[in-house]
Amino acid sequence: MFYAVILAGGSGTRLWPLSRSGDPKFLHALTGTPATLLQATIDRVAPLAEPSGTFVVTGAAHAASVARQAVALPEANIIVEPSPRDSCAAIGLAAAIIAEQDPEAIMGAFAADHLIADSARFVDVLREAIRGAESGFLMTVGISPTRAETGYGYLQCGAVEGDGPVRRVEEFKEKPPQDVAEAYVASGRYLWNAGMFVWRVRVFLEALARTQPALHDGLRRIAGAWGTERQDAVMAEVWPGLTKISVDYAVMEASAADGRVATVPGDFGWNDVGDFNVLGDVLPADADGNVVVAPAGDKPDIMLIDTTDSVVVSQTDRLVTVLGMDNVVVVDTQDAILVCPRERAQDVKGVVDALKDRGDTRYT
Amino acid sequence: MFYAVILAGGSGTRLWPLSRSGDPKFLHALTGTPATLLQATIDRVAPLAEPSGTFVVTGAAHAASVARQAVALPEANIIVEPSPRDSCAAIGLAAAIIAEQDPEAIMGAFAADHLIADSARFVDVLREAIRGAESGFLMTVGISPTRAETGYGYLQCGAVEGDGPVRRVEEFKEKPPQDVAEAYVASGRYLWNAGMFVWRVRVFLEALARTQPALHDGLRRIAGAWGTERQDAVMAEVWPGLTKISVDYAVMEASAADGRVATVPGDFGWNDVGDFNVLGDVLPADADGNVVVAPAGDKPDIMLIDTTDSVVVSQTDRLVTVLGMDNVVVVDTQDAILVCPRERAQDVKGVVDALKDRGDTRYT
Repeated sequence: MFYAVILAGGSGTRLWPLSRSGDPKFLHALTGTPATLLQATIDRVAPLAEPSGTFVVTGAAHAASVARQAVALPEANIIVEPSPRDSCAAIGLAAAIIAEQDPEAIMGAFAADHLIADSARFVDVLREAIRGAESGFLMTVGISPTRAETGYGYLQCGAVEGDGPVRRVEEFKEKPPQDVAEAYVASGRYLWNAGMFVWRVRVFLEALARTQPALHDGLRRIAGAWGTERQDAVMAEVWPGLTKISVDYAVMEASAADGRVATVPGDFGWNDVGDFNVLGDVLPADADGNVVVAPAGDKPDIMLIDTTDSVVVSQTDRLVTVLGMDNVVVVDTQDAILVCPRERAQDVKGVVDALKDRGDTRYT
Repeated sequence: MFYAVILAGGSGTRLWPLSRSGDPKFLHALTGTPATLLQATIDRVAPLAEPSGTFVVTGAAHAASVARQAVALPEANIIVEPSPRDSCAAIGLAAAIIAEQDPEAIMGAFAADHLIADSARFVDVLREAIRGAESGFLMTVGISPTRAETGYGYLQCGAVEGDGPVRRVEEFKEKPPQDVAEAYVASGRYLWNAGMFVWRVRVFLEALARTQPALHDGLRRIAGAWGTERQDAVMAEVWPGLTKISVDYAVMEASAADGRVATVPGDFGWNDVGDFNVLGDVLPADADGNVVVAPAGDKPDIMLIDTTDSVVVSQTDRLVTVLGMDNVVVVDTQDAILVCPRERAQDVKGVVDALKDRGDTRYT
């Protein structure tokens, strides 16, 4: 049996004001389909994992929304973090809970807010990763790079394992400068690190026990009480003291150095929908290159006149009119609007920071 | 006694979606003061005309709003047009009504939606125009041109009359092409035609009787019934058949050819606030050249980051965020938003036309 762990965290600040801390990216349908990114993620892993074997880890603020969107999953499979403790605690808690049932189980960890174009190919790649995990590797699913992106980490690949696509990962590389990113892509030896992992839970927890023993022990304590009357008390006692660290730093980098990490290349059309510019690249455009994003089923009232290659997000029933603009982002929500050039889409995070700096939490 | 006739018509489509046919420019406070453009116009003529001598001519759709804004004026001084019949009918009806009381009265006609920077200078110039009208001229107040504007008509000035600033107007010139406009301004002989007139009502009505006898007679019939129980019946019978023509075409052009028109130059900081670009030029800007327009007393929630020389109009309590834009117009209203470059501000009229073309009157 395969277990799927979906991480529904992060507020997607570069998609503000569409995405908010109280209404983050993964709760939104961005692709014109009725499914939200979270629901699409659950659907995508369904060929591999039973509903009873599919978990969502999310923050307390989103537990209710996640529960209502993830209707097919048992309530007990919504794992609620009392506070954010970064990805290692989130993934590790799910791993420890699964290990209580079956230490030899194989699990995968997936972000709830990524887009994947080819779901069938995704399942095929995952089956290859599962075979690698069965061989004892901590598997990552790397993404075949399509450009010299400086915003992602990279996996440096080494020897091919066996006759499949599985390759050893020699090293995790931080976000590189432009020239290094170009050299990585040209070499054919590097994949993007998309934070997608597959492993036997025992193997992962053993690695965690070596690198972060206190974090491992805390997660094991919580998992031991999980589903019992002591669950909340132990969670409240242990969780706040857990080390805040990403799973890459905590486990994967050291394990790669030890030769325990391998990868399969993911060529299924992956996108992390990081900002509105990327959203415009991913979604289908009209003849003028414009992309319109609106809630599913809603026919937004939008007039684009002499406007090209722009991204217009309409979350209200207001009329949005854009005249004579090129490569611009216009976002209309109930309480906030944003206008910026597509090339500044990455800097939208700065707007959210500026709002926080002035102590204004109404819009974030 | 001087009579002031204020023409509160036109929907200001180039200021859409701020200005609507149901909520036109003259009903708005655009300058950060509590006074709307209409109220500012009434205040501006107050040193010259009593409230009982100040009339507003407006359409049926705006009669209630005008009556509530023009609180100082008697109800009978709100002249309501059953349908738009262009400026000659509007001005002529007021002239005929005033003539019923006093044929020798001097009246001025003023648009309700223009900005004037120096009210004291405006009053001084009007007193000069009144002296010209006392001499029997159909007076216009021309605007000393500050640029080679192709969007206005021009007055070609001739001989100086007497020892004052009054000059004969030789000819009304249509909106000129760029090179002609430049030659006009360079010559010093031309003034902008701002549609501001001062005359003895008898003189105007005699001129109208010569050039548009049917229109003259119709207006006289309505004025004869004005204030009687027959007012509505005569208005309903006569008004729909009146010729739709501007006062320039109907009276002023022919009268200029006859040597009956004169002008005084208006150097009081005039602006017709034609579009959002002009609005940005007229209103005070912040250190980055940005102009914010919001209802008086309202502190709008606007974040401008790396944004310069832009015009942001906020009519709601939403947060408006503009990041990394230059020379852009952003207008936020309850049911519609507009984004365009300042250089396309003139084309906003086309948006309204496009909405009408698709039979959509919700937003116009």
